Amino acid sequence: MSTPASADGRRRPCVVILGAGFAGLHAAHALRHVDADITLLDKNNYHTFQPLLYQVGTGYLAPEEVGVALRAVFRRQPNLTVRVGEVVSVNWADRSLRCRDGSTLGFDYLILAAGAHTNFFGIPGMPEHSWPLYTLTDAIRLRHHLLSTLEQAANTAGPDGAQITTVVVGGGPTGVETAGALTSMAHEVVGPVATLAVTLIEAGPRLLGAFTKRCSQLALTDLRRRGVDVRLGQSVTAAHPHGVTLASGEHIPTDTIIWAAGVQANHLSRALGVTLTRHGQIPVDPQLRVPDHPGVFAAGDLAAITPPGDQRPLPMLAPVAIETGRHAGEQVARLIHHTPLTAFRYHDNGLMAVLGRGDAVAELPLFPGAPNHYRLQFGGRAAWLLWLGVHIVYLIGFRNRLQVLIDWAWSYLTSRGAGAILLTPPNTPTAPSPTPTRSIPD
Amino acid sequence: MSTPASADGRRRPCVVILGAGFAGLHAAHALRHVDADITLLDKNNYHTFQPLLYQVGTGYLAPEEVGVALRAVFRRQPNLTVRVGEVVSVNWADRSLRCRDGSTLGFDYLILAAGAHTNFFGIPGMPEHSWPLYTLTDAIRLRHHLLSTLEQAANTAGPDGAQITTVVVGGGPTGVETAGALTSMAHEVVGPVATLAVTLIEAGPRLLGAFTKRCSQLALTDLRRRGVDVRLGQSVTAAHPHGVTLASGEHIPTDTIIWAAGVQANHLSRALGVTLTRHGQIPVDPQLRVPDHPGVFAAGDLAAITPPGDQRPLPMLAPVAIETGRHAGEQVARLIHHTPLTAFRYHDNGLMAVLGRGDAVAELPLFPGAPNHYRLQFGGRAAWLLWLGVHIVYLIGFRNRLQVLIDWAWSYLTSRGAGAILLTPPNTPTAPSPTPTRSIPD
Repeated sequence: MSTPASADGRRRPCVVILGAGFAGLHAAHALRHVDADITLLDKNNYHTFQPLLYQVGTGYLAPEEVGVALRAVFRRQPNLTVRVGEVVSVNWADRSLRCRDGSTLGFDYLILAAGAHTNFFGIPGMPEHSWPLYTLTDAIRLRHHLLSTLEQAANTAGPDGAQITTVVVGGGPTGVETAGALTSMAHEVVGPVATLAVTLIEAGPRLLGAFTKRCSQLALTDLRRRGVDVRLGQSVTAAHPHGVTLASGEHIPTDTIIWAAGVQANHLSRALGVTLTRHGQIPVDPQLRVPDHPGVFAAGDLAAITPPGDQRPLPMLAPVAIETGRHAGEQVARLIHHTPLTAFRYHDNGLMAVLGRGDAVAELPLFPGAPNHYRLQFGGRAAWLLWLGVHIVYLIGFRNRLQVLIDWAWSYLTSRGAGAILLTPPNTPTAPSPTPTRSIPD
Repeated sequence: MSTPASADGRRRPCVVILGAGFAGLHAAHALRHVDADITLLDKNNYHTFQPLLYQVGTGYLAPEEVGVALRAVFRRQPNLTVRVGEVVSVNWADRSLRCRDGSTLGFDYLILAAGAHTNFFGIPGMPEHSWPLYTLTDAIRLRHHLLSTLEQAANTAGPDGAQITTVVVGGGPTGVETAGALTSMAHEVVGPVATLAVTLIEAGPRLLGAFTKRCSQLALTDLRRRGVDVRLGQSVTAAHPHGVTLASGEHIPTDTIIWAAGVQANHLSRALGVTLTRHGQIPVDPQLRVPDHPGVFAAGDLAAITPPGDQRPLPMLAPVAIETGRHAGEQVARLIHHTPLTAFRYHDNGLMAVLGRGDAVAELPLFPGAPNHYRLQFGGRAAWLLWLGVHIVYLIGFRNRLQVLIDWAWSYLTSRGAGAILLTPPNTPTAPSPTPTRSIPD
């Protein structure tokens, strides 16, 4: 890393932001006016708009509508360089990161925002036989599996049509939104020739555990009306190639297990040599500082941020990542400008989840920190329109925003998704071509 | 295949269209008002808008903007069923097709429109070491390779930046358009840190051999101005992992050989048991009928159609496929309606090729069948706007048309392509996740 001098001849400080999810992106944005060399480091050259992954997984959106090139996002921020690489360790002595390709990257200030990984909670068979839905690659894989299954069913359907079953594990926002999208997917991809049965399994007593009880009830009623077999208070004890086993001993046969039940902090946190929480998160102080490492902050899913007076850290949710990321960026700016740090305070702006076309649940606090009975709680089209508006505003980059809006409008009017084309994966053999193609092991 | 009866109790005729390229799509459209059961059979569930493949290969468009779901295209044509399958043989005795999955499909009328394959002309090393650009899968693979190469170069570039070399083989429209797009790709994907040198090799004496000499000259001047090293009258005799050898003995080092020099008719033609031309095409009569097989027609790249008085069959070009496909569909409609067949006549509406942003060459006949000196020939922005207009009109399906228009407008204004995100292929290992991932052999 070169360290060019600023106009007055002093070395400009180097800021490294590790991870380009919501936290890293907003940290980088918060540093846009700072006289520093900022490096945004991620293993991909794109940001993933995670709340819409389930729309890629179910063929409603194309991957390129949910992933946006980082250099395009930051093309008007000249103090920032995008670098693609995977960090394997941190050398605290000389303050540098080492990447898998052997290169190193020095820093004066570091923002750790590497996010989370899928967590299968040690359930036997789950890693091998389920489709997680946490990265864009996960979503592309799931889409390919679902579209292949539907095409095959359409080709071999008898006069009564074909019936495909899916099991979604986890009743949080991802599970609920995926289950809702699956109920209409078969009809939209292959028409009436195949139907897709959806079972949604949640170990807790209600769906959307982070929401109010009224919203949970709205979601439950609505998903059941859409034909989803919702199982509450039931946990999966094993996954097999052709189904799942529940704690009750019941076996539910399916060729498609979608895992939406949990994540854990990025394994990278273990390489940092700092004390971690039970979930692998880095416990930070109210200034988002990593203990014992001056100039180092953590944000997003990687950080355990416990508000003063609370017992539990803030949940791993996009709004928390956005706010902590922005705050971590501002803290680094304060250090560079020699102004005092400020404590982070989370502003809860409510929660939303989509259940289907034109249908969602939402809850909005009437004032900051409002208790549950001062939260607006509603469902149906109004909630969906609110969801649409918020997501369009939050989508990073004008181009994607406009495109996704058109796509949604089009999908809404025609019931056809952009992502419903069954692309051959780049290394699957193609038909009788003389090109030597590469086989995939499975 | 069920054979439901029509309103008057008679069995409705079964029409099978084999291939959903330009020819198959237009044949299907021509049959939209016919009382028949039409099956459109293709190995993919999407149509590929082939003239824009090079924009996917170079990261300007997302694959979903160039591939459009067949069921979406034909959702308002109730007499048509889309079926995904790969035909391996035809049984002429009982008039049925057999697919690779063992299923069969009977027909009363058959339109063969299975298109073409890449042809490496037996050049040693070319199938193993070059990137063809003929299918959407080809384009996705090439994009992945180019984006990976650029990201790697950006990470390891010294103070003078990194230089990447590419060799494009073939100076037809695909080769010329790809070379033009490559000249600006590096800057648009990773910025000034890497440059991409392009060598374009054409065995013939000029670029765009199917165009007039003036257009060829315009294209040559323009590509050279853009920095492309154009080699005319030079042929490639071998490809290696790190370069190509020319007939002159010269070795051009490169890690990226793009093959745009030729196609041949689909191998399926050999399974038909009919006499073929040297290029594997089916010679049809002026009515587009396949000799000795009543009710069977061929169209597009699979058919050799020699206009009366001409020596050579019509070229393998999208406009020819569109017109022959439409005519084949109309012929089947005539047979079903017991009206006489008509001879096919090609209407040459001109040719176009894009050289870069806001730049193209075009030639338009002033009247049907006009000789070269009665063809408008021009380049620059006017030709590009014409190209844009024609492609938007021809793009199948409103949704894609509007989206691609927005995309182009956006790319034109910002120099950023939608397809520049480097997606992990679905079966590549992802980073330290507990998910058991699948390795790719290369």
